Amino acid sequence: MNIGIDVMGGDFAPQATILGAIMALEEIPATDRIVLIGNEKIILETLKSENADPSRFNIVHTEEVIEMDDKPIKAMTQKTKSNLVVGFSLLKDKKIDSLASAGNTGAMLVGAMNSVGTIEGLLRPCLAAFLPKEDGGFSVLVDVGVNPDSKPEHLHQYGLVGKLYAEKIFKIANPKVGLLNVGSEEGKGNARCVAAYDLMKTALEYNFIGNVETRKLFKGDDCHVFVCDGFVGNMLLKHTEAMWYVMYKRGLVDDYMKRFNYELYGGMPLLGVNGTVIIGHGISSKLAIKNMILQSKQVFESKINEQLKDSLAKL
Amino acid sequence: MNIGIDVMGGDFAPQATILGAIMALEEIPATDRIVLIGNEKIILETLKSENADPSRFNIVHTEEVIEMDDKPIKAMTQKTKSNLVVGFSLLKDKKIDSLASAGNTGAMLVGAMNSVGTIEGLLRPCLAAFLPKEDGGFSVLVDVGVNPDSKPEHLHQYGLVGKLYAEKIFKIANPKVGLLNVGSEEGKGNARCVAAYDLMKTALEYNFIGNVETRKLFKGDDCHVFVCDGFVGNMLLKHTEAMWYVMYKRGLVDDYMKRFNYELYGGMPLLGVNGTVIIGHGISSKLAIKNMILQSKQVFESKINEQLKDSLAKL
Repeated sequence: MNIGIDVMGGDFAPQATILGAIMALEEIPATDRIVLIGNEKIILETLKSENADPSRFNIVHTEEVIEMDDKPIKAMTQKTKSNLVVGFSLLKDKKIDSLASAGNTGAMLVGAMNSVGTIEGLLRPCLAAFLPKEDGGFSVLVDVGVNPDSKPEHLHQYGLVGKLYAEKIFKIANPKVGLLNVGSEEGKGNARCVAAYDLMKTALEYNFIGNVETRKLFKGDDCHVFVCDGFVGNMLLKHTEAMWYVMYKRGLVDDYMKRFNYELYGGMPLLGVNGTVIIGHGISSKLAIKNMILQSKQVFESKINEQLKDSLAKL
Repeated sequence: MNIGIDVMGGDFAPQATILGAIMALEEIPATDRIVLIGNEKIILETLKSENADPSRFNIVHTEEVIEMDDKPIKAMTQKTKSNLVVGFSLLKDKKIDSLASAGNTGAMLVGAMNSVGTIEGLLRPCLAAFLPKEDGGFSVLVDVGVNPDSKPEHLHQYGLVGKLYAEKIFKIANPKVGLLNVGSEEGKGNARCVAAYDLMKTALEYNFIGNVETRKLFKGDDCHVFVCDGFVGNMLLKHTEAMWYVMYKRGLVDDYMKRFNYELYGGMPLLGVNGTVIIGHGISSKLAIKNMILQSKQVFESKINEQLKDSLAKL
């Protein structure tokens, strides 16, 4: 496969992205190619200074850069020679099989929807995150940021997306899908959750177990997929990271807590679009970039988006 | 003052509540009386078995109990001889100056609104929580549970409530009030936040500093009051507690992390009603109950609700 990586996106780009790509080379088969999208001169200079062989990469030169603080729609419309516009064009034309970036998240969303587009039958794509459980597995949290005003029918569909993600990536058979809420009883929460519950409890396409509280994220086999609106999901993810970082700085870390380090995973897949798109953390280190590249391969090969398309077509 | 405590409310009541009241006696002046509201026989038996002098308390006998899983409105309407109905009647008649309970939160809210009522000019009361900052202070988080569907105009008013709480309880001069959001730029977040921002930025009655992210809860002097809707606030509070508890169980605790233990504070004040009402954690231990009683005194003496009434009247 051809794994596209936006070299210019991220707080520590292009240095961290190129170094991460060099690290990833060691962990993928020779039949896979990493496609570096960005300023060719910088890429070649960096590869040279690292004694890395440029022939092991495909390089696609881009002139412009979409910055972290660019307005997404404006940037994706006007910066036509930029890393992300070119990247999504490659993805649409299937010259790359996946596109990963630690750059401007909003521009990534706009780019994905305007190029490969949302899967037919899905109302909104969503971002999936995962949090480590104490028993060694992971909880899937969805949506964590695409859609801050998710409607109940969006939440209902996220149940299916999350189920497929848990099945395809974490190999959990018939995963339990819960609606993240402030209490476990039916009728709890805000109007959005109450309405979503009514839709989700009729779902045949996934195993809905009702409302679940946040503590279940960390432990047990009671719930695998946690559905929430993108505002709450993003807030919880940031809060988890903030609290983890406080502990980390204070040396309060053990083997379990180490598994919260986002660098080990790399990024979050944008699910529900007609292509494999991975969105990384702005502060991505080279380790995070390496893992984002490996994650691109895993998500592409899982065929989750194809499976989602099939499932939606059958409803 | 007369400090009312619902003896029957909480997972470990009445044992933990009575023991907590006995502990609190040692820390309040003799001119204050703790009013135990609940089954007199159980209260007297427990005091006796603890070698505590019953004459040091006022006891108000109640026949019925509002259970944790009772439907709030139904229970408060039908169980007219219950701990909470009697308690709020005492509060309304000023026979007690404060009412604290670790029991049914919904019933507490219904009881407060139906008895002493909401302060004139305030659209909705709210629950305030506080989280320890690394520098030794506290962040005020409001609302954390009254109003899961807060409207922008509610959030706007919570800014004032939170500001007064930070001033009166934590003695912070001109506290900085932020809107808790998924990013710090104007225009971030869901529709509710975008609209609330527009209202809050015109506020003269508090010092609005814009959108703030969750990591600021833990550190620095950048923001003192974090405004959010009751659903998000309750979720964040539960998530913080869940994550803290995971760490605690794993022995990852230092002096700062110890300050997250809710038992040290006792409960959360319901702000914006015409009386001092403290809502405790269902799992309150005797230590938590003791501190909830001390907190009742602190909140009552701070006159925060009177101050809020004055501030609203001036707008």
